[in-house]
Amino acid sequence: MNPTLIVTVDIVLFTLSGMRLKTVLTRRERDPFAKRLALPGGYIHADDDHDALAAAERVLRSKTGLVSPYLEQLYTFTGGVRDPRGWSASIAHYALVHESVLISDAEHRFELVEVDALPELPFDHAAIVAHAVKRLRDKSAYSSLPCHLLPPLFTLTELQQTYEQILGTPLDKSVFRRKLPELDFVEAVPDAIRQGKHRPAQLYRLRPDRRLALFDKAV
Amino acid sequence: MNPTLIVTVDIVLFTLSGMRLKTVLTRRERDPFAKRLALPGGYIHADDDHDALAAAERVLRSKTGLVSPYLEQLYTFTGGVRDPRGWSASIAHYALVHESVLISDAEHRFELVEVDALPELPFDHAAIVAHAVKRLRDKSAYSSLPCHLLPPLFTLTELQQTYEQILGTPLDKSVFRRKLPELDFVEAVPDAIRQGKHRPAQLYRLRPDRRLALFDKAV
Repeated sequence: MNPTLIVTVDIVLFTLSGMRLKTVLTRRERDPFAKRLALPGGYIHADDDHDALAAAERVLRSKTGLVSPYLEQLYTFTGGVRDPRGWSASIAHYALVHESVLISDAEHRFELVEVDALPELPFDHAAIVAHAVKRLRDKSAYSSLPCHLLPPLFTLTELQQTYEQILGTPLDKSVFRRKLPELDFVEAVPDAIRQGKHRPAQLYRLRPDRRLALFDKAV
Repeated sequence: MNPTLIVTVDIVLFTLSGMRLKTVLTRRERDPFAKRLALPGGYIHADDDHDALAAAERVLRSKTGLVSPYLEQLYTFTGGVRDPRGWSASIAHYALVHESVLISDAEHRFELVEVDALPELPFDHAAIVAHAVKRLRDKSAYSSLPCHLLPPLFTLTELQQTYEQILGTPLDKSVFRRKLPELDFVEAVPDAIRQGKHRPAQLYRLRPDRRLALFDKAV
């Protein structure tokens, strides 16, 4: 047995706000680093948590009031120097939500900060965010992951802008639209049209079967 | 604190033998599951192990006598039901070695088993192996990872056969050779030619700078 180990979960919750990629930070209540902004995190409760994913869901909900439909394990950060209390393992997770989910924060439990303009973070939380941003970018290039940052119904222009923000690069419109059928995860919603300043735009949604497929836990 | 948690590392060590993808299993000395074949694994030693990667290196060396130049964190398997001793977290790693590394096993400390023909494994080790195989296949499609299964010098035919084995699909020779310069991680070794049954074949190696780049720990 190894009774002196600290085992926690930390969560990088992403959203797009003002077309900038942002993450949720909470102010720590207790030492170490009391009152500092940090990733939402907490101890695993062996009595309550079915597994680390359930612990991450519980900690995210209790620290921020938020529930994310997409939540996935990122990487486990470990060692004797990352936490002043002793040898620790943080099973880090990342999550994606549409901005509208965040407006429910009447109690001001969290702050939303651009990932490119983070304050100095305690522990190795800066490395955890950097790892999560890299994973999000790598995985977005070949998956429907960015759809989770969009509202339930969206135009193809909004979809393209979301990919551009996450990948950090402009995409050619004709190439983007040619690739969409290959990816095969969005579908037009019958009779759903948004009237805009210009011509009406067809609305799309993530296919329900593909939405489920993204909950890829272990294997 | 959470003093009741069990924190271990388990290692899936891959090799290609007879052009079949195989993994190393060791016979467990102690309960639970004493004498059963399982992945090499063990407790983290907070006093000795700098981090989980160092623990994986130590455990692999102590259980099998092997050192792998490529060793990377895979996924952390957690929960209250996977280990009869209690709530546990296994920070699983995977490693790749050329077959020649394994012939040093004079003490018969491990067995080599095809990943497609595993015996019944204790804990969730079957799921850990399946996850590692999937990661290896996914990552091989766009990286130099399979080179670690080859000897230091290899022909392009051997390189293609290795990719074919891991990806589980035959590759068109002309397409494969056209893609190699894009990937840009192998280089011809000057004056290194292997005389074979047919015509002489140029020998290649993984570029030293790319070999280092593959040790991608957290960010």
